[in-house]
Amino acid sequence: MIYLDNAATTKPFDSVLQRMQVFAEESYFNPSALYAPAFAVAKELEQARQALLSALGGQGNLYFTSCATESNAWVFGSGIKNKKGNIVVSMGEHASVYENVQACIGKGLDVRFVRLQSDGRIDTEDFLQKIDAATTLVSIIHCSNETGAINNLKLLTYHARSIAKNVLIHSDGVQAFGKIPTNCTDLGVDLYSISAHKIGGPKGVGALWVRDKLHLAPLLRGGGQEGGTRSGTENTVGIIGFAQAAQCFSEIDRSRIAQLREALKEALCRQKGISCNEAEIQSPFVLSLSIEGIKAEILQRKLSECGILVGLGSACAARLKTNRVLNAMGRSAKQIEGSIRLSFGPHNANDDFTVICNALTDCIRQLRGF
Amino acid sequence: MIYLDNAATTKPFDSVLQRMQVFAEESYFNPSALYAPAFAVAKELEQARQALLSALGGQGNLYFTSCATESNAWVFGSGIKNKKGNIVVSMGEHASVYENVQACIGKGLDVRFVRLQSDGRIDTEDFLQKIDAATTLVSIIHCSNETGAINNLKLLTYHARSIAKNVLIHSDGVQAFGKIPTNCTDLGVDLYSISAHKIGGPKGVGALWVRDKLHLAPLLRGGGQEGGTRSGTENTVGIIGFAQAAQCFSEIDRSRIAQLREALKEALCRQKGISCNEAEIQSPFVLSLSIEGIKAEILQRKLSECGILVGLGSACAARLKTNRVLNAMGRSAKQIEGSIRLSFGPHNANDDFTVICNALTDCIRQLRGF
Repeated sequence: MIYLDNAATTKPFDSVLQRMQVFAEESYFNPSALYAPAFAVAKELEQARQALLSALGGQGNLYFTSCATESNAWVFGSGIKNKKGNIVVSMGEHASVYENVQACIGKGLDVRFVRLQSDGRIDTEDFLQKIDAATTLVSIIHCSNETGAINNLKLLTYHARSIAKNVLIHSDGVQAFGKIPTNCTDLGVDLYSISAHKIGGPKGVGALWVRDKLHLAPLLRGGGQEGGTRSGTENTVGIIGFAQAAQCFSEIDRSRIAQLREALKEALCRQKGISCNEAEIQSPFVLSLSIEGIKAEILQRKLSECGILVGLGSACAARLKTNRVLNAMGRSAKQIEGSIRLSFGPHNANDDFTVICNALTDCIRQLRGF
Repeated sequence: MIYLDNAATTKPFDSVLQRMQVFAEESYFNPSALYAPAFAVAKELEQARQALLSALGGQGNLYFTSCATESNAWVFGSGIKNKKGNIVVSMGEHASVYENVQACIGKGLDVRFVRLQSDGRIDTEDFLQKIDAATTLVSIIHCSNETGAINNLKLLTYHARSIAKNVLIHSDGVQAFGKIPTNCTDLGVDLYSISAHKIGGPKGVGALWVRDKLHLAPLLRGGGQEGGTRSGTENTVGIIGFAQAAQCFSEIDRSRIAQLREALKEALCRQKGISCNEAEIQSPFVLSLSIEGIKAEILQRKLSECGILVGLGSACAARLKTNRVLNAMGRSAKQIEGSIRLSFGPHNANDDFTVICNALTDCIRQLRGF
């Protein structure tokens, strides 16, 4: 089997599994307990935090959560204190931001959606028109989970702050973390969500980066873990696995993945009726293709019979009828119907690409009937 | 080392670790993805849900969360829609309920605390006085995490519903689940929180049981996992471990633990100035002792030098200066100062008890100086 779904990057690294096992089996102590073996776990937990914080530029604070969905919910739950002002978000957000936005609309808040360019990045001009002095919260995905398009957060946050002095700027960095530079202070964000299982770590653990001197009211209250900001007994196994995954992912050969993606894209897009949904500034880990004259679900099934697993887009939106993000990029219903998403990871071998290219070419030809 | 802290019951069972490893290493697929190996994971996840649901009486729905703290936050976040009516909670709640209650008070809600009897259970008479037709939410801990006292939920919910017709009744069942009967429908609750790591499962996974036909607005929105009720990629490793732990814990020898607890209690409480904080209906897994003339932290340290780890109470309140629950039970500051909590689990051997009894007796004698 060749995995080109997010599963490709989801498969935990061996050393991640080993570290997880240690903390599941031997160092299973509650880090809040007051005896030596528990102190040792608490110390390792802090080291994991520092390691991830370093990967985010070294400043600010990092709070562990159960997933990026929780991180995003926390931002929307605590970042919006009243109905004054307005919220500006892109039309390319992941469901875990988008659904919070829908809830805000339901509560009568003034929510403004920023258009996407046809390359999947947000339209800067439209962004600057939507934002004003009353904007209280901005949320812009760093790297699109559908296409891998990378937004220029540094530029956007700079402009946003010159217009809205007290704005809180959040970015969902799940597809960016570990894959492209993510120095949060440099990017100019106040809040940044990340997740372990997109970089070869375990499912069930994420984090929220919060800039210095910013206090966020807790979403989960209780035992006062995470400096009183996120209560609940720490998922030590997950947290340790997360830090280990970040370490492993930082060591992978990005240029190899970029070259393989490029080769695959060129080989496929030179064929008639296959186009790539990508941006000038682009993650090498995602390749979104629109294939004319086929239905993506049928192609997906056919490919899986050939031993190749691809996604149609976000698994978090796998059961929806359309693709909201491709739609916002101006793709037609026909194009969306024939769109697949290939995700790459360190587990994909160079040799895979010939197999993939041939299988895709064959399957598409068969489906088109010529 | 002999563990008599919650760590005793926290240590995951071997078969839990084995199942976790399978889902971390081989079956790591995202259960929302649309291909065969992911479907297989989704199926196992549903089996885990059904197994836990059976352990809760078989009716209703079960939604996985990241911990009972999240389950409790969800109840308070979604169960309270406006400032009308009042909320009735016991004074014996765990921090993860208590801190939500404090937040409700901060928002100006009418919160009524029900007194505890000196045995740690809630005062039924006071409960019936506090509740009225306008009560919208009741939250009563099933089994006290500090003393193991078991509240008669069936009686309390029956009375509550005869007074407040539309009340939503929640119980934090973390210390009860797997240890005492927890048929939620029989108990008469609408909502019931449970956690894996208190029954030999992993940290970082919990659940909320919700009665049939009750819809709770989500705390975490996004990909629509858990029937749209709790979004976020499922912590499959944790969930599978949770179900396996419940299975293992259901097979342990409760009467052995009850006998050992009883023997230890008798041996210790016949000594001068040692009393037990317990109720007539009591969990066999907890033994709370108040020891006159000593400081519990010092005893704890001394015992750990003898290879015995005990708690002073909830790890979630380990760094607080007093014990809120013992205080509500009418224990004096002196008694609280000398209170320790022994938690038992299947890992405690029969032989341990002589060691514990002798070590405790010696350490107390040394500390008292006679």
